Amino acid sequence: MDTPDVLAWRDGQIEALDQTALPHQVRVVRITTVDQLIDAITTLAVRGAPVLGAAGALGVALAVRQGDREGWDRSRLEAEVKRIADARPTAVNLRREVQAVAARIPQGRDAVEAAALAVTEFATAVSLRISRRGADWLRQACGDGRQGDGRLRVHTHCNTGRLACLGWGTALGVIRALHEDGALSHVIVDETRPLLQGARLTCWELGQLGIEHRLAVDGAAPFLISRGMVDAVVVGADRIAANGDVANKIGTYSLALAARQAGVPFLVAAPESTIDPATPDGAAIPLEQRPDEEVAVPAAPAGTRAINLAFDITPAELVSAVVTEDRVILPGQWA
Amino acid sequence: MDTPDVLAWRDGQIEALDQTALPHQVRVVRITTVDQLIDAITTLAVRGAPVLGAAGALGVALAVRQGDREGWDRSRLEAEVKRIADARPTAVNLRREVQAVAARIPQGRDAVEAAALAVTEFATAVSLRISRRGADWLRQACGDGRQGDGRLRVHTHCNTGRLACLGWGTALGVIRALHEDGALSHVIVDETRPLLQGARLTCWELGQLGIEHRLAVDGAAPFLISRGMVDAVVVGADRIAANGDVANKIGTYSLALAARQAGVPFLVAAPESTIDPATPDGAAIPLEQRPDEEVAVPAAPAGTRAINLAFDITPAELVSAVVTEDRVILPGQWA
Repeated sequence: MDTPDVLAWRDGQIEALDQTALPHQVRVVRITTVDQLIDAITTLAVRGAPVLGAAGALGVALAVRQGDREGWDRSRLEAEVKRIADARPTAVNLRREVQAVAARIPQGRDAVEAAALAVTEFATAVSLRISRRGADWLRQACGDGRQGDGRLRVHTHCNTGRLACLGWGTALGVIRALHEDGALSHVIVDETRPLLQGARLTCWELGQLGIEHRLAVDGAAPFLISRGMVDAVVVGADRIAANGDVANKIGTYSLALAARQAGVPFLVAAPESTIDPATPDGAAIPLEQRPDEEVAVPAAPAGTRAINLAFDITPAELVSAVVTEDRVILPGQWA
Repeated sequence: MDTPDVLAWRDGQIEALDQTALPHQVRVVRITTVDQLIDAITTLAVRGAPVLGAAGALGVALAVRQGDREGWDRSRLEAEVKRIADARPTAVNLRREVQAVAARIPQGRDAVEAAALAVTEFATAVSLRISRRGADWLRQACGDGRQGDGRLRVHTHCNTGRLACLGWGTALGVIRALHEDGALSHVIVDETRPLLQGARLTCWELGQLGIEHRLAVDGAAPFLISRGMVDAVVVGADRIAANGDVANKIGTYSLALAARQAGVPFLVAAPESTIDPATPDGAAIPLEQRPDEEVAVPAAPAGTRAINLAFDITPAELVSAVVTEDRVILPGQWA
């Protein structure tokens, strides 16, 4: 892999792969101030919940360095740290990791930097464990696959690779582990409208890894599954309710339904932190309606209204297994 | 309706609504020569199987007029008519109607023009009968609808309105008939990737008709159906096999599967000519693979390969009813 790290701490600065430039340009931005970091987060140069958490953690270390250089007092430093936490209001990972690392500030710069690096290392380690466990589960569930040669054709949705998660990612990490095992035929990637994370980011990651893949429109996926073109579906999750219902990028439910109809395993790969015991079921998860323009512009007539849900809910009964860094959760093992 | 006809014969010329300019411009092209007609067909200014059939029929009349003006002999006229029939090789309607009208050439110009106009009138009449019968069937199947007020929320896919079919269209004609009955709440329109006929054309048609609608990405549709946001799904068909399996624009199968899961009627609206007794079932329908670039460009990395099927197959068992100009065909009434 000659491609740069998604996020790194070097010489007291943050280096980040600019995700707005992908896939057409591989560009690293060097971040030395809180203002630059907030700019990178708000422009989505840095994105993906676990990556945002790590960026927030490193951001606290960055703020401490900048404060040392510029002679900030305690209250100025606290204000700057709070600005980082607030850079994207809905990103719980960002706020959580900023607060956790900021708690180390009284112990000094080295303690802060160690805590920040631990956040990125933990995210990476979690990802690798999910990847390995998911691949093992899938190989067992699929046996030699429908092609009979032990090489699986895996369908995935959105972007769940290192760009979003560090390490190997979640669902895409499972795919990478299959590839390293010699157990992968190819990947079918949903383009993932409206923001096209599959087309833009997942195809780029797979290309970097030398993993054979084909891009498909989202509407095609259930039909491809029905025609025996897919051995398994693997997706990530944004939140998993206590009963096992899965909130994930819009378009996930249709894959689960088609997989069930075709008798194809449907695996969800996500960190334990995604499971929310305070959410009893999918009906309790609010559905985020995003701007009409993401769907309507530029193809539709001006002013066209849209239904633009960011996420959908897949009922637990359609999920073959949830794999985390610690365990495999099967249907019937939920609350 | 102040908008121009999709296709008309006026003063010995063809007037066509330029579908490449929609939805952002409403532009009529005036076609006076065979060259201009072929250009309009190949650039997709004129598109949609029934519309292409009518354009071919009027094209023969146009060729006869041009031949009179320019003194063509019989073999030149035949060659020009053949060029029209060949303008899009896969459009069976185009070739069929060209040949039918060309058979009138020995009877003179008036007979040719009468036959050509009869083709457009027949397509219009078929569309109106499908629309009326489909609306009646849906109102009976849905009763007062899930909102309880007799106003249905209808999901549709691709473009099946007058732009493709003349008259009122097929599935979109059914929706228009519901609207005229006061039995329509609103329409949810799939954008219909990769070519976005839903976003570009169906939203435009619905806007012209003053019919309330919302645009959604294709991947969202099955989830919206699962959440009780849809009373019925209505789509067109490109071919219907003898056993009732339906070939239609990619993305249709997932709607049918979700409708079945949610207990929502799934209606197919199509002319009798769509039913092909020579095709025993969906497995006998070849799946057209279109260019990778339609999916991959511009979002994906350069050179990304795609799976780009133009159509999918919905098994007859998932279809609640097929409505044509002559009858309603229920499951179990197929061969």
